[in-house]
Amino acid sequence: MKTVQLSHGGGGQEMNHLIKSLFFKYFENDILLRAEDAAVLELNGPVAFTSDSFTVSPLFFAGGNIGKLAIAGTVNDLAMVGAKPEYLSCSFIIEEGFAFDALETIVKSMKAELEKSGAKIVCGDTKVVPRGAADGLFINTTGVGSVMHPNISVNQLQAGDAILVSRDIGCHGSCILMARDELRLESELESDCATLWPVVEQLIASGVQLHAMRDATRGGLSAVLNEWCEASQVQIDIEEQRIPVADAVQGLCELYGFEPYDLANEGTMILAVPAKDAEAALAVLKGFSPNACQIGEVSVANSTDMQTADTKPTTSTNKVIIHNPWGGRHYLELPQGELLPRIC
Amino acid sequence: MKTVQLSHGGGGQEMNHLIKSLFFKYFENDILLRAEDAAVLELNGPVAFTSDSFTVSPLFFAGGNIGKLAIAGTVNDLAMVGAKPEYLSCSFIIEEGFAFDALETIVKSMKAELEKSGAKIVCGDTKVVPRGAADGLFINTTGVGSVMHPNISVNQLQAGDAILVSRDIGCHGSCILMARDELRLESELESDCATLWPVVEQLIASGVQLHAMRDATRGGLSAVLNEWCEASQVQIDIEEQRIPVADAVQGLCELYGFEPYDLANEGTMILAVPAKDAEAALAVLKGFSPNACQIGEVSVANSTDMQTADTKPTTSTNKVIIHNPWGGRHYLELPQGELLPRIC
Repeated sequence: MKTVQLSHGGGGQEMNHLIKSLFFKYFENDILLRAEDAAVLELNGPVAFTSDSFTVSPLFFAGGNIGKLAIAGTVNDLAMVGAKPEYLSCSFIIEEGFAFDALETIVKSMKAELEKSGAKIVCGDTKVVPRGAADGLFINTTGVGSVMHPNISVNQLQAGDAILVSRDIGCHGSCILMARDELRLESELESDCATLWPVVEQLIASGVQLHAMRDATRGGLSAVLNEWCEASQVQIDIEEQRIPVADAVQGLCELYGFEPYDLANEGTMILAVPAKDAEAALAVLKGFSPNACQIGEVSVANSTDMQTADTKPTTSTNKVIIHNPWGGRHYLELPQGELLPRIC
Repeated sequence: MKTVQLSHGGGGQEMNHLIKSLFFKYFENDILLRAEDAAVLELNGPVAFTSDSFTVSPLFFAGGNIGKLAIAGTVNDLAMVGAKPEYLSCSFIIEEGFAFDALETIVKSMKAELEKSGAKIVCGDTKVVPRGAADGLFINTTGVGSVMHPNISVNQLQAGDAILVSRDIGCHGSCILMARDELRLESELESDCATLWPVVEQLIASGVQLHAMRDATRGGLSAVLNEWCEASQVQIDIEEQRIPVADAVQGLCELYGFEPYDLANEGTMILAVPAKDAEAALAVLKGFSPNACQIGEVSVANSTDMQTADTKPTTSTNKVIIHNPWGGRHYLELPQGELLPRIC
């Protein structure tokens, strides 16, 4: 079996060969092939810039692999601020002995995922570390792209905004959990790993106003909503029975004691849009997933009915409140503890 | 001892705390503190974009650490295409159990190194992997910056260009080699790890024309010169006795059988400038290092006197020829084989 050797990261002949025969072959474009120390791009106006390192384990999972995840993840972070994904860098940290075939499969997935947004890899880096110094393969992707819709931000939520989700939640986290489980549960569950730029592009084209968007990765829905409440100083009220969760995800959560709200997603976004635009936004979202729906709304941050005497109103109202079908309610807290490591 | 735990990479409360108490504390700037999925930058015109992952071992070495190296390395890649380093992303992959103090020391070094170019870290990512899944700490830094001098490129070398080096070569590679050597050689040798933007900024301000610049990292001087010959279709003639090599580096090379030309540098650049500008460029370089000097020149790619009968002239002339003080000469080849792993 052909494997990656330390010499492939040494900066000499072998590295040049690996770069040309694999990375240049699949990622080919004029800028990349120039092979300068830095790519030179023409950019004008507000540009989004984001970076992620991917350490997912296992490297291959139902619905994707680390390569697809790396491209979708970085493209999605650009899309979430209303930016068209244009240029990506791609840096590999490869463990000595990693199978060349597996690397090629991953690179092919990256190429396929890039085509969904039209983004290009224009520069990169290859490091090879000795056996045992890394677990197989880590990938960093960093991206830039022009902002097409202004002022989408964690601090732009306003009272009355509708909170939407683009599809059912928790699939990626569940899928990684299942892949690692020694029982090897049988399921058709797949990661939601996907590029969100096509749906964001249509949302922008439809003219709806977008206050905030976030792909609910680590920390899941809980993390996104809590960060929004804190940054925008608002309260968010969510109706539990409206949150779409697949039966397989719900079952796995009950088995392991997880909450689907805390599980990672890799192609599922949460949106805050003005109430007047909710219907139009949902129409676009439903074109991509029938499970898209409104799950709640933003309230003014002045309700005091859940406060106890010793709680200060200024902090306690910037909370996510989840309402169950029986009239009960509780705070949806920011996740804590170990959760599931290496899900992305 | 306080250490990094898996929960610090989970996307919940602990990760937020790590980011705010460490990364935001030292890298503080308006854009970073916005904490959006992507930073939004105002960029106009040609922009350079470059990425590197750092896996150096040991993490701390004479003259620097992985943090200083990560900032200098990415800033230098921008500077090498004539771009002012402006915005960096920074992604950490941390092994569970990594000492918090060591991480803080590294982050402080990054802050100090950023100040040398004025670049800012505006976005980032934190992953924590279980014990054994990574060796301590890996850092990816990706940078963007406005191009201030056009057309600096591997393919812009022209016959007659002077080849300059900014200081003595091979210090970083030697220093890492020494740090790993079980004999623990005693030496005052330090890595050349440094930010090159201040010298590049002065070169640009001085009005000299810059055809090509490269920091001679992995593969050293040999790799840079060979890549230039191939990309620009020229021959480069180097005089061996003019190449500055510190005694300690020379001694270590003799001990281990390395060539100083193949050793990595992390703050040493090679330049190709028109002969008319060589003196002015050297004057600027000498302001930063007294060892800066001209080591050779670019010839037209048509000399045939080193060819054997079965060598095609079109390939054999795009070579680096090194002349020794006794009239001998040989090709300086692109390094091959394992060289020294994890030097950056």
